[in-house]
Amino acid sequence: MEFVKDLKWKEGMDVNELVSSLGKVGFQSVELKKAQENIIKMKKDGAKIYLTFTSNMVTSGLRGFFAQLIKLGIPDVIVTTVGGMEEDIMKAYGEEFVIGDFQANDVELYEKGVNRVGNLFIRNESYSKFEDLVSPIIKGIYSKKKRVTPSEIFKEIGLGLKDEDSILYQAAKNNVPIFCPAITDGAFGFHLFMFQQNNKDFIVDVVKDFQNILFSTSQDEKKGLISLGGSISKHHAILACLLNGGLDYAVYMTTARHTSGSMSGATTNEAKSWGKVKDDSDAITVIGDVSINFPLVMISVLEELKKDEII
Amino acid sequence: MEFVKDLKWKEGMDVNELVSSLGKVGFQSVELKKAQENIIKMKKDGAKIYLTFTSNMVTSGLRGFFAQLIKLGIPDVIVTTVGGMEEDIMKAYGEEFVIGDFQANDVELYEKGVNRVGNLFIRNESYSKFEDLVSPIIKGIYSKKKRVTPSEIFKEIGLGLKDEDSILYQAAKNNVPIFCPAITDGAFGFHLFMFQQNNKDFIVDVVKDFQNILFSTSQDEKKGLISLGGSISKHHAILACLLNGGLDYAVYMTTARHTSGSMSGATTNEAKSWGKVKDDSDAITVIGDVSINFPLVMISVLEELKKDEII
Amino acid sequence: MEFVKDLKWKEGMDVNELVSSLGKVGFQSVELKKAQENIIKMKKDGAKIYLTFTSNMVTSGLRGFFAQLIKLGIPDVIVTTVGGMEEDIMKAYGEEFVIGDFQANDVELYEKGVNRVGNLFIRNESYSKFEDLVSPIIKGIYSKKKRVTPSEIFKEIGLGLKDEDSILYQAAKNNVPIFCPAITDGAFGFHLFMFQQNNKDFIVDVVKDFQNILFSTSQDEKKGLISLGGSISKHHAILACLLNGGLDYAVYMTTARHTSGSMSGATTNEAKSWGKVKDDSDAITVIGDVSINFPLVMISVLEELKKDEII
Amino acid sequence: MEFVKDLKWKEGMDVNELVSSLGKVGFQSVELKKAQENIIKMKKDGAKIYLTFTSNMVTSGLRGFFAQLIKLGIPDVIVTTVGGMEEDIMKAYGEEFVIGDFQANDVELYEKGVNRVGNLFIRNESYSKFEDLVSPIIKGIYSKKKRVTPSEIFKEIGLGLKDEDSILYQAAKNNVPIFCPAITDGAFGFHLFMFQQNNKDFIVDVVKDFQNILFSTSQDEKKGLISLGGSISKHHAILACLLNGGLDYAVYMTTARHTSGSMSGATTNEAKSWGKVKDDSDAITVIGDVSINFPLVMISVLEELKKDEII
Repeated sequence: MEFVKDLKWKEGMDVNELVSSLGKVGFQSVELKKAQENIIKMKKDGAKIYLTFTSNMVTSGLRGFFAQLIKLGIPDVIVTTVGGMEEDIMKAYGEEFVIGDFQANDVELYEKGVNRVGNLFIRNESYSKFEDLVSPIIKGIYSKKKRVTPSEIFKEIGLGLKDEDSILYQAAKNNVPIFCPAITDGAFGFHLFMFQQNNKDFIVDVVKDFQNILFSTSQDEKKGLISLGGSISKHHAILACLLNGGLDYAVYMTTARHTSGSMSGATTNEAKSWGKVKDDSDAITVIGDVSINFPLVMISVLEELKKDEII
Repeated sequence: MEFVKDLKWKEGMDVNELVSSLGKVGFQSVELKKAQENIIKMKKDGAKIYLTFTSNMVTSGLRGFFAQLIKLGIPDVIVTTVGGMEEDIMKAYGEEFVIGDFQANDVELYEKGVNRVGNLFIRNESYSKFEDLVSPIIKGIYSKKKRVTPSEIFKEIGLGLKDEDSILYQAAKNNVPIFCPAITDGAFGFHLFMFQQNNKDFIVDVVKDFQNILFSTSQDEKKGLISLGGSISKHHAILACLLNGGLDYAVYMTTARHTSGSMSGATTNEAKSWGKVKDDSDAITVIGDVSINFPLVMISVLEELKKDEII
Repeated sequence: MEFVKDLKWKEGMDVNELVSSLGKVGFQSVELKKAQENIIKMKKDGAKIYLTFTSNMVTSGLRGFFAQLIKLGIPDVIVTTVGGMEEDIMKAYGEEFVIGDFQANDVELYEKGVNRVGNLFIRNESYSKFEDLVSPIIKGIYSKKKRVTPSEIFKEIGLGLKDEDSILYQAAKNNVPIFCPAITDGAFGFHLFMFQQNNKDFIVDVVKDFQNILFSTSQDEKKGLISLGGSISKHHAILACLLNGGLDYAVYMTTARHTSGSMSGATTNEAKSWGKVKDDSDAITVIGDVSINFPLVMISVLEELKKDEII
Repeated sequence: MEFVKDLKWKEGMDVNELVSSLGKVGFQSVELKKAQENIIKMKKDGAKIYLTFTSNMVTSGLRGFFAQLIKLGIPDVIVTTVGGMEEDIMKAYGEEFVIGDFQANDVELYEKGVNRVGNLFIRNESYSKFEDLVSPIIKGIYSKKKRVTPSEIFKEIGLGLKDEDSILYQAAKNNVPIFCPAITDGAFGFHLFMFQQNNKDFIVDVVKDFQNILFSTSQDEKKGLISLGGSISKHHAILACLLNGGLDYAVYMTTARHTSGSMSGATTNEAKSWGKVKDDSDAITVIGDVSINFPLVMISVLEELKKDEII
């Protein structure tokens, strides 16, 4: 039996100490500490780790943190949506996103050519530049291979980037496949379509990538999932692991509620009914903004893994 | 200037009267009434209507309601995720889903072969039967055409079903295309992969379906969106309309919050910065469970359209 | 075992039919139907019914509906916050609240003397008029009795109002006590303080009202709670019933989450650990906006009670 | 114009560095950093600082952190609910609260005499001991004064405690008044009632405490509010400051949504319509669990104030 312990500030307190203290505070802080323990456990247990996130997290400054985590060998497989990959490319080419305001006047923003994603702003010109970047990339891929999977496309792109902070670059370099079951759902889809107009034999083979994610692990392997936000990224990683006997560890971080039966809000508890996760201590849901909770958990994980010379 | 008006029960009150009264109550009830007005407006204005929903809504009894709406000519285009289409097929073949409990013991459910989706239960055998159903379907499609799009697949399946309450059936019959940008993200993906193993020239062409959704409307056409829940369905419909000059009307119903910058929680307000929606009165977000709010809004819409002999 | 049933629109569908259908849809619609059944059960079982709500619901058009419910004999005891009672008085004297906008410019509103409560607006003059109304009322009460409880004050005020749609009026007329454990937390508190400045022997005895709510029921009596929103109103009703052996029935309607351990978000499930509610079927939490869900549930309850000649 | 900056882990990263980095990440992390800046600003500007929190936060390990903040001179006035003060007393006398589980079986807990507050457990015996503690305290207060305010009661209790980690002790010692507009809404209310049964001239004067909170500041003084969670604590502090010309700074931390028009979910934006807060940069709402966000913000504030030798 563990007891609540009064939190105390000590001068110069580091993140790892704070996360330790939070474990005795209560409510989501307790779940956050359990998430940290669970991720350490999955890493030490040699589990294959799936990391999923949504596009808006790549819009945010988590993008470079994801890249760093890949470099440090934390995730083995990534599942995400195409919007984030587009923005990773933009950023790799120097585009900057603006810190704005949730309450901005959206009509005014539109007139200025600014697109709002929560309290972040993306300028139209970032998309125009993306257009110039992506066309030669698709052409280059096609020149080598006429039938490609999304994960091959992303690997190819990553190899061509020269940005240490890029998810695509680090993933390509470290052989971490990036799966994206809805590759056409973004500006990228538009450019693929444009290219296919003139190159009818160009095929993006999503079915083949289902095989690739399926074979990214096996029944025998331990499997862990770190799922940030909801969407098909979360669903797809769960599905791939389920078809391989189910997850051994799962950490979900989300703001969505379970009360509507949506995938985004589905807790690790519900996952147990799907045979995905087996034990209470290995299935943790932390409710709250990923932009705060994920760095907090993960920095603390990294400190512990460093201490134990695992990274 | 409109004023708050005290709600009063009258014996035998019908849904349409209630929705009218709710328009003067306050908070989300006011938004709900605005959503009703907005949908009537888009219909009367002859807008092309995009309806998007998530899989869990097809798990629920909204499934037959969606089918009815298609039959009545409300949506012109549907965008959804593959899980829902799988369940529509299961239901068309007589599978029944159980009304369960959010607090069910998930480990016990697993041992009984029951999968939980919120407070609904799906039995494993429903999936096994799906396996038996889907293989001949894919085979049949392949025998006609080796390179198909998701929307073609769904049309083909719909034509083969014999269930008035099926979304796929009604959509096929009424020429309403169903777009599904992540067709492999479900049991269906697994069966496509199995089939492709032995039929390497079988291609699911998602890029071509991007063209199809893009050409499903045009710059000149008025466009309206009814988006239920979030996910790529919502994003994909917005994207397609945006590339055609933007939406004229939008109703979003969701439980997600806008505070995390996610697509699921993005409000119709944010949509204005993307040039998607132009006017306040034409962009309504209703926060709450779709299983309650959508029938309430839509029944009231249908009553009004019936009165005006539009349906 | 109950099964999901496809929802279908029928022309002229009444609210009661819709609520019946919703019971087979899934997610919160199922909980909503259970709430309806639970309230009917508590009424038929002769339970003493506690109704709690927050001030913003009185700002809204639910105010007249609450009054109607009191008139129809639904609640036996009311627990609320003082802000709502202030607004009930304003409305009884003809003040009108405006249907506004969640996205209004708040600085502009301030400059126009308009106060925003969600998407409802209250003009400053409504408060000024309240000042003129409340002073003679307090004076009148003091002239009869120098030491009064909040529930006595509200009864006294109610007796003086002449508005069928007033909560205070109907409560006074039908001997439904209104408890308000924080009577000073509003404009009313300010006026009580002003009056006490010149009348030091004027005492508002909140401790005595604790006795009154405690004696409003007994161990032997069946007890039911309909709690709308959170706040001390919810807590206070639970507490009073707990000290009398616990609740037999409970319906909570809220938008708050249980994940932060707050009273507002506490579910009826948690209530079971407090010995408050005993059985699953008698403890229902419906997540969503009360401005929609409460009328829906309650109109359906009234229809059923009318059918059975209970009201 | 500020830009999104990729977050990077550095070994041994301290909390203050993390909070700085979060300011460039996006979504709630940006708001969290603004909250830190706002609190530093209110402190440096010599504003009178109101701190409000709900009972469940005192159940949690934030309790000792609140005590530390009082000791360090951060808040000048506290507004809270009585449940928290009861638990502060229990803890001061050595009671321990258990770290439990959100998914615990509530019926089993009840049978074991355990009460659940989110994922924290309070044993029945803690309440029994409280009974033994509180009776002589009330008796002692009564022997000195027959008509007392809640804030006087809390001061009296605090002076008698000998626990550095107690909110009541630190508040009493540092002349920080604790206001509690609903003092009877808890076990404390029950004991006050029991005592009054035999001592009819014992009066708890809540109206007088309205004067006290009103006079706790003035029109001339700068005023800042740190409001954690919702409830009457939040409302009461806003009200007191509003009657003194309005707040100059406000930081709200909550999980509640603004979409239902509730006080708990009301944002600092809405506060501007009430003349409470004047400028955008001085009114920050952080959405998320206080058990995580408050320590993060506040530790960073303390580090900065320490650096500047303000604490």
